[in-house]
Amino acid sequence: MKIIYADNNATTKVDKEVVDAMLPYFSDFYGNPSSMHTFGGRVARRINEARASVAEMINAEPEEIVFTSCGSESNNTAIMSAINSFPDKKHIITTRVEHPAVKSRVEHCTRNGYRGDFVPVDNLGRLDLDYLYDHLADDTAIISVMWANNETGVIFPIEEIVDHLKGKKIIFHTDAVQAPGKVIVDVKKVKVDMLSLSGHKLHAPKGVGALYVRKGTRFSPFLMGGHQEGGRRGGTENVASIIGFGKACELALKYGAKEGAKTAKLRDRLENSITGQIKNAVINGDRENRLPGTTNISFEYVEGESILLLMNEYGICASSGSACTSGSLEPSHVLRAMGAPYTLVHGSIRFSLGKYNTDEEVDYIVEVLPSIIERLRKMSPFWHDSQ
Amino acid sequence: MKIIYADNNATTKVDKEVVDAMLPYFSDFYGNPSSMHTFGGRVARRINEARASVAEMINAEPEEIVFTSCGSESNNTAIMSAINSFPDKKHIITTRVEHPAVKSRVEHCTRNGYRGDFVPVDNLGRLDLDYLYDHLADDTAIISVMWANNETGVIFPIEEIVDHLKGKKIIFHTDAVQAPGKVIVDVKKVKVDMLSLSGHKLHAPKGVGALYVRKGTRFSPFLMGGHQEGGRRGGTENVASIIGFGKACELALKYGAKEGAKTAKLRDRLENSITGQIKNAVINGDRENRLPGTTNISFEYVEGESILLLMNEYGICASSGSACTSGSLEPSHVLRAMGAPYTLVHGSIRFSLGKYNTDEEVDYIVEVLPSIIERLRKMSPFWHDSQ
Repeated sequence: MKIIYADNNATTKVDKEVVDAMLPYFSDFYGNPSSMHTFGGRVARRINEARASVAEMINAEPEEIVFTSCGSESNNTAIMSAINSFPDKKHIITTRVEHPAVKSRVEHCTRNGYRGDFVPVDNLGRLDLDYLYDHLADDTAIISVMWANNETGVIFPIEEIVDHLKGKKIIFHTDAVQAPGKVIVDVKKVKVDMLSLSGHKLHAPKGVGALYVRKGTRFSPFLMGGHQEGGRRGGTENVASIIGFGKACELALKYGAKEGAKTAKLRDRLENSITGQIKNAVINGDRENRLPGTTNISFEYVEGESILLLMNEYGICASSGSACTSGSLEPSHVLRAMGAPYTLVHGSIRFSLGKYNTDEEVDYIVEVLPSIIERLRKMSPFWHDSQ
Repeated sequence: MKIIYADNNATTKVDKEVVDAMLPYFSDFYGNPSSMHTFGGRVARRINEARASVAEMINAEPEEIVFTSCGSESNNTAIMSAINSFPDKKHIITTRVEHPAVKSRVEHCTRNGYRGDFVPVDNLGRLDLDYLYDHLADDTAIISVMWANNETGVIFPIEEIVDHLKGKKIIFHTDAVQAPGKVIVDVKKVKVDMLSLSGHKLHAPKGVGALYVRKGTRFSPFLMGGHQEGGRRGGTENVASIIGFGKACELALKYGAKEGAKTAKLRDRLENSITGQIKNAVINGDRENRLPGTTNISFEYVEGESILLLMNEYGICASSGSACTSGSLEPSHVLRAMGAPYTLVHGSIRFSLGKYNTDEEVDYIVEVLPSIIERLRKMSPFWHDSQ
C-alpha cells in the first residue's frame, strides 16, 4: 500500500544526500575523532565541518554548537546547565505547552526544591506574555519557551520575549526543534542564550541533535565523560549522524524558505478542503503565526485515535498530538492548556506536511477523510445529524 | 596509504551486515516508532527485535535493556539512577581506573555532597578487593567497577565481587563496553544490577549504547522526556543505529568466542615479537586476565605521543591510553594508579586488535616499530645505549 506521510512533525524521511554523506563513515573512515592518528583526525575535521553547517543554518558560530543525541537531550542539558551553573537560583519559568522533555524535566526540578511557573496560553494557543513577565523573580535561573509548538504549529514571539528580558541575568532557552527548515531561525537577530535542535525533524537521521550555547553563557555539562565537544558533552561522537545532520542543515538553509512556502500552500488547501467538506471540524491554534506544514483539526464527537486507525487503513499517517506522548492515554496537554472543550480535545488530528508531500496526496486525504468521519460519527452516541 | 588499524578499543569498523540492516531505516521505513500508524509501528517492532538481540548477547531479558546514545550515557544513567533512587544514601564506590564517564560523574557527585571511595589497583592493574570490601558503608548507593579496563585490557573479578555483595542492598554497576564479543558476559551467571554497553566497540556505529537494568532494580531516568524505552529514557529512538546494534550483538554472540581466540593469538605474537626485539619494552597489566586483543606496552625513555606520530606515518593506528582522554596532556590515570614510574607512564602505547586484523598487519607493525623506537631513543637525553 502506498503511504501518505503527513506526520512530519513526528519525524521525517532522511534525504538521499544526507545518507550519501553518512555512508563513508561507517566502514571506511571509521576512526575515533578523538584519536591521535590521521585516520581519526580526518573524522574530527569532518565533524567540525558539520558543526559549521549547523551553525550557519541558525547564523551562529561553530564553537557555539554542542552535538547531542536528540532534541530531548538538548532540552535536558539546557535546563540542568542553567540550574547547576547558578546554584543559588531556585526558580524556573516555562509554558504549559512544552514538549515532554522540557515539561518532565522542569516538573522533576519542582519536586526537588525548585519553584516552577508555567505560562498559560489563550484559546488560540498564544502565550500570555504578561503572566511570563509578572513571574520573573530575582532567583529565576532559566526561562524555557519553545520556538514553535509541535502539536499546533503555533509560533511564539521569542524575539519579543528576549528583547523584554534584555539586561536581566536569566538564561533564556528555546526548544526550536520544529522550526529550522520551515521558518528562519537567526540567533544573531533573536538573542536567545540556548537553543535546541533535532536532526530527524529536518531530514537527518534520528539520534542526533544539537544545543546552541551563546558564547559567554555559563555552561555545565549534563552528560559527563571525555573531553568531547570541548568538554561540554562526554561520549564518543555519533560521527555518521552528525555528518548527516550537517548536510541536512545545509539543505534546510538553502531550500527551506522555498519549501516552506510550498508546504504552507499544500497545508492551506488541505485545511480548507477538510473544513469545507466536514461539519464541526475546528482548526486548533493561531492561524496567523504558524509553522507552514502543520494543521491541528478537531472533529467533534469522534475519537482522534479512531480516526487515525481508519486513516491508517488507507495508508495515511498522521497523529493525535505528539508522538512522544502517544503511548499515554492522556489527551493532549497542549489542547487542554488552550481550554478546548472535551469534545474537541479528544477528536483532534495533527497533519504535518513536509517537502516530500504532493498535491495528489492532499487530494487523497481529502477524498478519504469525510467518509471516515461520517462512519465514526454514525457510531457515536453524542452525534446527531442535525449538528 | 594502507591503514593498519590497531585501535579497536577506541572504536571499530562497522560490519557490512550491520550497515545493510540499518539502511532501510533512513529513507524507506522512517516512521517514528512512537506513532500510532503501522508505518511507525513496524519500526517499533524492529527496535524490539534489536532489543532481544542485545539482551541475548548478555543472557538478559529484552525488557531489561534500555537503549541510550553511548556507553558514557549508560554510565551516567546508572550512577544518577542509583543516587536518585536512594536519596538517603550518600556514598559511592568506584575504582581508580574507570573510564572518564564514570570517573568524572563520581567526582562531580563528591563535589555535591557525596563521599566517594576509589579502589586502588596493584602494579599489574588488579583490583584491591579488600579495600573495596572494607569501604562498604550503610549508605553506599552504588558500586561501579568496570568489566575490563580499556587501556590495559585487564579483566576484573566482577563475579567474585557480586557474590561477595549478595544480600547487601547496594546497586552494583559495571561498565562492560570493552567486553562483549571478546569475552563472555552473562548476567544470569554474574548477577550485576546494571551493565553498560556501547555499539561502536563491537562493530555497530558510534552513537548508540545500552544499559542493562536487572528486573526489580529501582530506576530513575537520566534523560527525561517522552515515554520511550518504557519511560526509562526520553528522546526519539536512534532507530537505524539501534537496529545495527542488534545485528552487531547477534554477530558478536555467534562469532565472538572464535574471533576472540584468533585475536588473542595475534596479540600474543605482536607482544612477544615487540618485547623480543625491543629492549626496555614492558608490558603493562595482568597478562593472565586480559581481553584477547589488547596489549599495553611501555617503551622506556620515549614519549608515547612521538611513537604514535611516527607510526602514523606508516599508517599504523594505535593509541596512548584512552581516546576519550587523548585531548588532555595528562598521562594515563590508569598507569599512574598502577604505580608505574614516570618513564613507563609517558612511553606507553596501547595496541588493540580486532577481528579484521591479520598476520600480515602484525608482521608490518613488528617490522616498523623497532626502528621508530631506536630513532626516538637516539634523540632522548635519558637514553643510553648501554641500557
